[in-house]
Amino acid sequence: MTAKSSRRSGGRAARKALREAPVAMEARSVRPGMESATLKVLSDEQINMIHEAAIEALETIGFADAPQSGVDHMVRVGCILGDDDRIRIPRAVVEDALSKACKDVTLYGRDPKHDMHLNGHRVHFGTAGAAVSLVDVETEEYRDCGVQDLHDAAKIADRLDNIHFLQRPMVCRDIPDNFEMDMNSIYATVSGTTKHVGVSFTEPDYVDGGFDMLHMVAGGEEEWRARPFVSNSNCFVVPPMKFATESCEVMEKVIEGGMPVLLLSAGMAGATTPSTVAGAVVQSVAECLAGIVYVNAVKPGAPAIMGTWPFGLDLRSGAMTGGSGEQALQTAACAQMHKFYGLPGGAPAGMTDAKLPDMQAGWEAMASNVMGGLSGLNMVYESAGMHASLLGFCHESLILGDDIIGHALRCVRGIEVDDVTMALDQMREVCLGGPGHYLGTDATLARMESDYVYPKTAERLSPKEWAEVGKPNLVKAATKKKEEILSEPSRAALDPALDQEIRAKFKIHLG
Amino acid sequence: MTAKSSRRSGGRAARKALREAPVAMEARSVRPGMESATLKVLSDEQINMIHEAAIEALETIGFADAPQSGVDHMVRVGCILGDDDRIRIPRAVVEDALSKACKDVTLYGRDPKHDMHLNGHRVHFGTAGAAVSLVDVETEEYRDCGVQDLHDAAKIADRLDNIHFLQRPMVCRDIPDNFEMDMNSIYATVSGTTKHVGVSFTEPDYVDGGFDMLHMVAGGEEEWRARPFVSNSNCFVVPPMKFATESCEVMEKVIEGGMPVLLLSAGMAGATTPSTVAGAVVQSVAECLAGIVYVNAVKPGAPAIMGTWPFGLDLRSGAMTGGSGEQALQTAACAQMHKFYGLPGGAPAGMTDAKLPDMQAGWEAMASNVMGGLSGLNMVYESAGMHASLLGFCHESLILGDDIIGHALRCVRGIEVDDVTMALDQMREVCLGGPGHYLGTDATLARMESDYVYPKTAERLSPKEWAEVGKPNLVKAATKKKEEILSEPSRAALDPALDQEIRAKFKIHLG
Repeated sequence: MTAKSSRRSGGRAARKALREAPVAMEARSVRPGMESATLKVLSDEQINMIHEAAIEALETIGFADAPQSGVDHMVRVGCILGDDDRIRIPRAVVEDALSKACKDVTLYGRDPKHDMHLNGHRVHFGTAGAAVSLVDVETEEYRDCGVQDLHDAAKIADRLDNIHFLQRPMVCRDIPDNFEMDMNSIYATVSGTTKHVGVSFTEPDYVDGGFDMLHMVAGGEEEWRARPFVSNSNCFVVPPMKFATESCEVMEKVIEGGMPVLLLSAGMAGATTPSTVAGAVVQSVAECLAGIVYVNAVKPGAPAIMGTWPFGLDLRSGAMTGGSGEQALQTAACAQMHKFYGLPGGAPAGMTDAKLPDMQAGWEAMASNVMGGLSGLNMVYESAGMHASLLGFCHESLILGDDIIGHALRCVRGIEVDDVTMALDQMREVCLGGPGHYLGTDATLARMESDYVYPKTAERLSPKEWAEVGKPNLVKAATKKKEEILSEPSRAALDPALDQEIRAKFKIHLG
Repeated sequence: MTAKSSRRSGGRAARKALREAPVAMEARSVRPGMESATLKVLSDEQINMIHEAAIEALETIGFADAPQSGVDHMVRVGCILGDDDRIRIPRAVVEDALSKACKDVTLYGRDPKHDMHLNGHRVHFGTAGAAVSLVDVETEEYRDCGVQDLHDAAKIADRLDNIHFLQRPMVCRDIPDNFEMDMNSIYATVSGTTKHVGVSFTEPDYVDGGFDMLHMVAGGEEEWRARPFVSNSNCFVVPPMKFATESCEVMEKVIEGGMPVLLLSAGMAGATTPSTVAGAVVQSVAECLAGIVYVNAVKPGAPAIMGTWPFGLDLRSGAMTGGSGEQALQTAACAQMHKFYGLPGGAPAGMTDAKLPDMQAGWEAMASNVMGGLSGLNMVYESAGMHASLLGFCHESLILGDDIIGHALRCVRGIEVDDVTMALDQMREVCLGGPGHYLGTDATLARMESDYVYPKTAERLSPKEWAEVGKPNLVKAATKKKEEILSEPSRAALDPALDQEIRAKFKIHLG
């Protein structure tokens, strides 16, 4: 009763108290894994046409450059090795692989509260790579990024509600040895966040070392296999229509080790795929279907994500672009293709061609993020922090990306329409002899946290209030948050004894 | 043959020549009036529920405060005036009005090339008002806006391909007399752009003066009535569920004068509509349906636009917010409701709560603009330039909005899927003995202008190129464009003799 009457007062103090009470995950207005399929940039007929074209590409063009082991696996399940050394994949083989493929991949967090269930149109947002520069917003410099920057990104991502996973966004350019780089990328990410992590391996020979470390972190191989909290981002294909020999060998090894695979086809429309959106999607789908055939030949039902990642190209300059409308369409179309096959899928969004977190960065990031989300993309990769067509990563943009994605997730959640939300009773009460407005009513205040998303770094002050508090700058506010987070120890730090064991076995570059 | 072989060379010079050739409107990648209905934030069942709830509100709650003339019009067509002085509207009356309502409104430009045909899911973007401040990006000040600022906005909008109409975005605060303000708002906009213009009248008595001026500009009343190039933005309702007495009188007068009407219901979720998205949409739809009944009672088939404009509120502060995800959903849902009734419709999008053209401004503007567009909203109002929840207008943001909207329009255009765009023949040629990439082929280059949208002020330089050209700042680039445009005379300036006549009759404040 007290709480209720204090709410009725509609006063600022009551609102503030209500606002500052902790909100349980289930009661939050947006959460990981919300479902949406309200955007359909492709019609059912178009989806079918793309599917048929992809099948024709698989049957008639096929793929060069599979490693011998892959050839053996795929020929065993019915693929045909031609005189031209290309593997062609008959329709029936694709259908068989699709029937065996894992439809419900769980990407585990080291902390179970961060587990992601990739099925249906459940949407998750996170980072991906692999930037070669860190964007310093203060000096406006692009400088080589290193292992500390990667670890910092993990620590920041760990604290942002709307960043659901951390695929390694940056390359550790300060570690010249590739094996050490791979091991340190795992260490820097896993010790920075308990969310699911995605990494890559430069060479097949490095995979064993990675598993050694992951088994140690998990507490044993069995524990690792029960909840693999790291997946492998696998560029198994070199578009157009060639297998990436070494990456395929990596893939075979990580599958055996129980690590989920992101089957990543990273073409570029106008360079390594046809320049049309439809052509880029057809080729990406064909390539990922080949990956699905490959994975399920190695181990039926092994967890794999359909990673159709066609990027854009600026045809004027021949340079990659990630921030275009064409990109947003490609990503949205890919989400629909994943669901046509009933497979977990991911695609890139949220990238910008802008060099700094400016207005362009905002609008480019939002278009593809919200369209990917509305299309029910299970994994929205690259969704925060990526500048200059993936060349630069920016910690401030990662923090601001949390607001962008919260906004996009509110749209993903969509509109609940029922007798309560349509609120005819409220309209009657308010209009017929009532106060003539809905301000401060119980019905209004009850929606404050459950229905609304409030930006955390962005602000909504009036011009007057804004001037009074010194005209806060958005990027500076993000820098302040970054410094706060980075001044604290990692909340995902490994147990000191375990940490020592790892450092005894691997050369860890983080201090 | 020459052109073809020069294209084959794929050289920079060839690309440059191709790029700089003027592109006819029909060949452009995006145009006004593109159609989209790929986003459906409401299911058919939800649409029907909202419709039924709106009908119930019209039948049982009804509207207070209609002027006597409006009561007479509406009672004549079957509405019921209750003992409580509220007009209630039976379902059959709504259905009758819908059957008579104009389904295909043309909003004319003073130049016919800017005519907009509002039917189906054809999408147009433009400005709306009514900001009270101009945002000075250099000093970061919000200062009172005036008639010169309004004229400048018109001149800028006239030059931006993706701003399809100019509804008066700012109030002339430097003109204290309301009649003079209304007349000068018409003059400042019409003399700044030949695109369709939207204005408002403060009082019914001012309408005649407005028509006097418009007849002069058109070359006579008959010419005006044949192609009315100015519409009236009419806040005919004060949510919740009250007619705005004087605005209704304005509406009756402009209908008689042949001016199209925007039936604008500008509620605020949580203040003047229920706080839920569904409730805000139900009430806005009910209010606009009442407007449709009213207009068609005054003059069956008079051109009117269903202006469901539910805004958002930040429930924490009680202040308006235009840049939220809830706003984007409301706007997208409204677009679907318009089409359920088969009526031309408009709603607000592109607004930001940010005070300056920063990253927040970019992401907020994009979310609602692209979602409105993908929903097939005929008129996307407020789509460029609006800051601080509509309090401030910024010329630089208007210019940057042209890029945002171009991007959104590319998404509205969607994906063409056919044998040519799926490009299996290209894939075959490239992969089987071909060059292994699609760069510089005829098929690729042919798409350069027809399929791709290139930002005009935003840039896509590599970090290296960007540093070499001095790290261009986005907002400064917009300021430079603004200064270029404003240094030239208006391309829409009135004939000097006509101008003198108008100045003889009206006190024109523009120098």
